[in-house]
Amino acid sequence: MPQLRKDPVTKRWVITIHENPKGPRDFPVLPTDTNGHNCPFCPGHESQTPQEVMSYREPNTLPNQPGWRVRVVPNRYPALQIEGDLDRTGIGLYDMMNGIGAHEVIIETPDHHGGFDTMSRDQVLKIVTSYADRYRDLKRDRRFRYILIFKNSGAAAGASLDHPHSQLIATPIIPKRVMEEVEGAKQYFYYKERCVFCDVIRQELSSGSRIIHENENFVAFAPFASRFPFETWIAPKDHKASFGDIEEGELETFASALHGTLRKLIKTLNSPPFNFIIHTSPCDELCTDYYHWHLEIMPRLTKVAGFEWGSGFYVNPVPPEEAARHLLQSGVA
Amino acid sequence: MPQLRKDPVTKRWVITIHENPKGPRDFPVLPTDTNGHNCPFCPGHESQTPQEVMSYREPNTLPNQPGWRVRVVPNRYPALQIEGDLDRTGIGLYDMMNGIGAHEVIIETPDHHGGFDTMSRDQVLKIVTSYADRYRDLKRDRRFRYILIFKNSGAAAGASLDHPHSQLIATPIIPKRVMEEVEGAKQYFYYKERCVFCDVIRQELSSGSRIIHENENFVAFAPFASRFPFETWIAPKDHKASFGDIEEGELETFASALHGTLRKLIKTLNSPPFNFIIHTSPCDELCTDYYHWHLEIMPRLTKVAGFEWGSGFYVNPVPPEEAARHLLQSGVA
Repeated sequence: MPQLRKDPVTKRWVITIHENPKGPRDFPVLPTDTNGHNCPFCPGHESQTPQEVMSYREPNTLPNQPGWRVRVVPNRYPALQIEGDLDRTGIGLYDMMNGIGAHEVIIETPDHHGGFDTMSRDQVLKIVTSYADRYRDLKRDRRFRYILIFKNSGAAAGASLDHPHSQLIATPIIPKRVMEEVEGAKQYFYYKERCVFCDVIRQELSSGSRIIHENENFVAFAPFASRFPFETWIAPKDHKASFGDIEEGELETFASALHGTLRKLIKTLNSPPFNFIIHTSPCDELCTDYYHWHLEIMPRLTKVAGFEWGSGFYVNPVPPEEAARHLLQSGVA
Repeated sequence: MPQLRKDPVTKRWVITIHENPKGPRDFPVLPTDTNGHNCPFCPGHESQTPQEVMSYREPNTLPNQPGWRVRVVPNRYPALQIEGDLDRTGIGLYDMMNGIGAHEVIIETPDHHGGFDTMSRDQVLKIVTSYADRYRDLKRDRRFRYILIFKNSGAAAGASLDHPHSQLIATPIIPKRVMEEVEGAKQYFYYKERCVFCDVIRQELSSGSRIIHENENFVAFAPFASRFPFETWIAPKDHKASFGDIEEGELETFASALHGTLRKLIKTLNSPPFNFIIHTSPCDELCTDYYHWHLEIMPRLTKVAGFEWGSGFYVNPVPPEEAARHLLQSGVA
């Protein structure tokens, strides 16, 4: 069973893996370039993954058989384990608990070489709908306090398989970075009685210099204090704390915003490695008034080095106004 | 002039570079492999760097000429600029200030192919002595609130030149990660009336299972909640908040601990890319009772991906007890 260990100074949690731990010569971990031949995520290879949790499929096809359009399976090498109790223990001054949680893989398309730049908008809609379905289902498990949905695209962004996929991890504690955002938003709300994200969106729409994409419900922009070159956030224009509360019609405009924004980034930056992460309220939903869900996209163009690790300070060689200008000139609608 | 921009939610600061900003086709930035031929840090090429700030040299040699053993110069491409005023401005709800600070390069050895595994202990002593000298000098500038000393070794760890060097950045604000540590240590102190680092060191020495190196004044250990495989911290056994207060004799035992630990890591992991960072108290020294300076070494064996960015949670496939065991078996004294 993995362990959750807490740093006694910063209160940062770490998951340590104790089954078959890696040794000093197991690094660097090279990504498996299966080239579609023996890819566990390709149609026809369904038996190479754990049994599917859900799928969207063609009529009259069976679970764990070809015919799916999006397929969700448990991660074969989970960082957290779904079965067991959340035993908490102290070891002297240290705190730890069992690594209980969920770790799922969302296989985004049957096409091994597919990508957000080439797939249809309908496929993107299916992907974000699967995110919402899995989010709502896992939120009912009272052991989980946060549900993180994210994508690693490209080896430099941490992807270990090249078949397009995203991941979902449900954690038994609220992660530190999430708490920082929630606390920051709470302080602003107590001071101003307004949601800080709503104020940011209003200012971005009125200034216009960092806007990358806009539709009826969503806006994509380069944040004022972008940590990374071409960092882009997509947020609902209307206040909503939890991604799980996204409505039917909003799924379509969200898919459209995500599709349009990623196509601009992929074209302008020549298929860069990237991560995206959905930032949403913790499952307890105590922050409904002041938190505002959004998605953050981080192209991985620069290396994070000692200065960033030591300080939490980032050096960004592309001002966000420049990034937005380049993306708007990409010729992608 | 670089700008310091603050994220309104998380209060994280970012330095944006506005002079000659990079464009979408300037990535990835490839490290310059000079192979010693045209390296600006090699002896004889002193005119390729800004004028030196200090150096330790052979008798009867001149500044900015060969004959040095350690040489400190301003960074030619500084993230922060030494000259100017710290103007602060608001832009709507956003906050920013001028990017004032110091950014220096410590050239660790004249030997282009030198490294901590092959250099003498005396050379390591010269390096850490130069850190302390520069720290104390810059601390007198009242515009600076924190002095960060770090090393990026290897392209995957963010080094852009392969000649061995470390860096120093003095910042006009206390970085967020530093404040988190200071606040965590303060909370523990208020609760226990003891320094949390002193308690950690006591527990590590008594358990022994994560110890990697020990001498009269310093101990190196794999922290209980290691974020990265083979992460190693070196801390003074006696309570001391600021690296700047390190004494003459302690410089020798610190050099010895750093040398021994890095030699173990370099041998066991086959010359891995790594970062190290000195964590010290902010310049105001308000936390003398409860902060405890130390150095953190992070081999860069795994990729930080979406989960880590989104959560601040880390997944570590090598339990620290295993890491310590491998390092003790390295055969390095």
